[in-house]
Amino acid sequence: MNSITTKNHTSFAPAANSSIGQAIRDLSNQFGQKCSTSLVIREQHGRDESSFSVPPPDAVIFAESTQDVASAISTCAKHRVPVIAFGVGSSLEGHLLAIHGGVSVDVSRMNKVLAIHAEDLTVTVQPGVTRKALNEAIKHTGLFFPIDPGADASIGGMCATRASGTNAVRYGTMRENVLALEVVTANGEVIRTGTRAKKSSAGYDLTRLMVGSEGTLGLMTEITLKVYPLPEAISAAICSFPSIEAAVRTTIQIIQMGIPIARVELIDSNTVRMLNKYSKLNLHEGAMLLMEFHGSPASVKEQAEAVQEIASDHSGQAFEWATTPEDRTRLWTARHNAYFAGVQSRPGCKVISTDTCVPISRLADCLLDSVAEADASGIPYFLVGHVGDGNFHFGYLLDPNNAQERETAEALNHKLVKRTLSLEGTCTGEHGVGLHKMDFLIEETGAGAVSMMRAIKKALDPLGIMNPGKIFAA
Amino acid sequence: MNSITTKNHTSFAPAANSSIGQAIRDLSNQFGQKCSTSLVIREQHGRDESSFSVPPPDAVIFAESTQDVASAISTCAKHRVPVIAFGVGSSLEGHLLAIHGGVSVDVSRMNKVLAIHAEDLTVTVQPGVTRKALNEAIKHTGLFFPIDPGADASIGGMCATRASGTNAVRYGTMRENVLALEVVTANGEVIRTGTRAKKSSAGYDLTRLMVGSEGTLGLMTEITLKVYPLPEAISAAICSFPSIEAAVRTTIQIIQMGIPIARVELIDSNTVRMLNKYSKLNLHEGAMLLMEFHGSPASVKEQAEAVQEIASDHSGQAFEWATTPEDRTRLWTARHNAYFAGVQSRPGCKVISTDTCVPISRLADCLLDSVAEADASGIPYFLVGHVGDGNFHFGYLLDPNNAQERETAEALNHKLVKRTLSLEGTCTGEHGVGLHKMDFLIEETGAGAVSMMRAIKKALDPLGIMNPGKIFAA
Repeated sequence: MNSITTKNHTSFAPAANSSIGQAIRDLSNQFGQKCSTSLVIREQHGRDESSFSVPPPDAVIFAESTQDVASAISTCAKHRVPVIAFGVGSSLEGHLLAIHGGVSVDVSRMNKVLAIHAEDLTVTVQPGVTRKALNEAIKHTGLFFPIDPGADASIGGMCATRASGTNAVRYGTMRENVLALEVVTANGEVIRTGTRAKKSSAGYDLTRLMVGSEGTLGLMTEITLKVYPLPEAISAAICSFPSIEAAVRTTIQIIQMGIPIARVELIDSNTVRMLNKYSKLNLHEGAMLLMEFHGSPASVKEQAEAVQEIASDHSGQAFEWATTPEDRTRLWTARHNAYFAGVQSRPGCKVISTDTCVPISRLADCLLDSVAEADASGIPYFLVGHVGDGNFHFGYLLDPNNAQERETAEALNHKLVKRTLSLEGTCTGEHGVGLHKMDFLIEETGAGAVSMMRAIKKALDPLGIMNPGKIFAA
Repeated sequence: MNSITTKNHTSFAPAANSSIGQAIRDLSNQFGQKCSTSLVIREQHGRDESSFSVPPPDAVIFAESTQDVASAISTCAKHRVPVIAFGVGSSLEGHLLAIHGGVSVDVSRMNKVLAIHAEDLTVTVQPGVTRKALNEAIKHTGLFFPIDPGADASIGGMCATRASGTNAVRYGTMRENVLALEVVTANGEVIRTGTRAKKSSAGYDLTRLMVGSEGTLGLMTEITLKVYPLPEAISAAICSFPSIEAAVRTTIQIIQMGIPIARVELIDSNTVRMLNKYSKLNLHEGAMLLMEFHGSPASVKEQAEAVQEIASDHSGQAFEWATTPEDRTRLWTARHNAYFAGVQSRPGCKVISTDTCVPISRLADCLLDSVAEADASGIPYFLVGHVGDGNFHFGYLLDPNNAQERETAEALNHKLVKRTLSLEGTCTGEHGVGLHKMDFLIEETGAGAVSMMRAIKKALDPLGIMNPGKIFAA
């Protein structure tokens, strides 16, 4: 297990944590039962799906309103104590770890859908609403929220990491689907960053500055999202390929032809084996594309025919269709279980997940070489990808007691990132920087852009209390 | 004509313009012929399509490279002299006016298409490339860039104002279509804000912070854009309605049904009359929707049939189809000439253009009441709208020598903005804030959000030299 060192994490760090005791006393007085310092609760709020291990936060506030969040942040600002938002804890990059101590503000009780404007295709929610709960709440309107990172993440967390997932190839990411926010700033003030209008040129795009800022600039307390009419027709298909390369080249051609496919996911043969075992399925054990088509019945048919033709040009076979909701759910549940299937394939393992994303024409170059390297390393892994976006994930499955394995996996990851950057891609398509990719961020954007980010951070959070030490060192 | 007062425009303003003389001497030495202080040149760079009149900039630099821009800004920073980017001068809100004096950096010679990645649906251009030139340059690839603000604006200017136009209902705005930027910062440093990957979670979204910042945070020198395959089939139609309300209710229903219409533009009957006269057309003189459908032949047919049905439910008549490229070009040229047709209808007039945008369900409430008010005022106007986005423009046609008319028009505009804000809309859908909407911006977002914008401005441009006095007072 990896311990995070905090050396050199000083310039934005709270002056001294000596005031944490007084902060907790103040918070206890303000929040009563909603403030906890129990070790069990703190430990629950001190870990996510990453492989890092650090001490838990000093206290947890269960916020129930914007006013609660504002009060908590004001008190933390007064004592210069870090504030870390917590949704469901499904982050993969250590975003919610209290590396400088401080207070975890749990927003899971802020789980109301505040407004459904079906007539405008917008909803407004509190940050603790999860994506599945949101879809349940709006099902009766014939609308759905497409962004789907796999985990049943909170909408607040998805905003914070600029999440996406399997539907992004058609519907975009959180970047494209957040219209407006209510945010509590680092001094406890409540601001609004936009309206429900579909477009606007009214000043700096604070909404998109907050989306992806990983809790380092403020805490989102209301989120207005775009939603979409449930497609008239949906059809899903599995297609098996003789090689990863054939599956990837099929994907590239689908995208380049402008086919508005809703999902196109790659699973390599090894991962199909893991899924078969974990989910008790009988999928053909080759590289596989899982696809979904949305539209009118005629357009779905048209898309599916075009894709089938491209796939057979690349020796795709065993096309299987899932047209009932139950079949589709089974299929996508299996896909979303890839992570857990991977973990189960090596009991007790820890996962390092990669998240590179390249322009679609570079996908084969990026992926195939990295597969060869991973195979040569001997580290077990699973491999899945939102390949329609040029985004894929290796999950290296590590023995936590074997330092050599971690070193090898980190070296593979670094090599993959370097390859990605040389192919004009990004080190993180959807997971965020967190603790794990701070050096990659500098490699990717250069020091100048990171300096600009730091200047913004310093301007909006001069005391450095908002989730310090994430994205860049504090 | 309106003069801009600069009182209260102090806190970000350059310390003193006494150093402008030395700045110009330095720039002349650096740039030779590429630096001009001729009055004619300066006056060309000191006006746009807005109705404001202020003294021209003190000098104009014709930049030919990123290095030129960086040198110019470094020199201006040294002497604390304002820097204002200039593309083609088609801004409507006074963005490029030198209200604090300073240097206009004309980027029209930076007009190269630097890279066409047809296989990834991206292009990289210099900021002086205009949207028509870009489309000409990529036509042979079967791709197009859809954003279309009417004027043949520069891509840099379109980025700066977060422009959109007639195709935004289908393809989004500059917000959704800029992937990455090269920017010269306020201290003359060159940074990059992203990669060519379709999505990314790599730190703060500097790309979208720059898009819409109206030249106040830096100067964009390279722009990577999304482009789209030219649709297999395109079909355009005109439909005439007995009232604006019928046309608007048709639009609302088209959008609410999720029909992926590519363009849906409203022109009121009075403006149709102006167009007929200006463009020598014989359009039926009622409220009108101009529409366009993109897709496969089958999907275009499906969309058109659905829309025709909705339109006839609202007594739409005189459906006319334009399927040849020539017919379509004639149609959209006429639409884009609405501004000039309006101006010609009252020779010598000045235009105040409104730009409100509301959620689609509020469009009828917002538009119809505002039409009644405009009619009652006696001020001549034209009225066009990207109604599929909830965005429309009154162009009040003013006698520049009649102060009362301007006052009436400004009052109409303010009333429209207030109504828009009460309907959860924005004061500017696509034109930007510039000089004209600074007070509206505060009404819309509240003082908290504007303070945050100011904090960002101060962090990234501590000397206050980048287009000072736009978006908020300097």
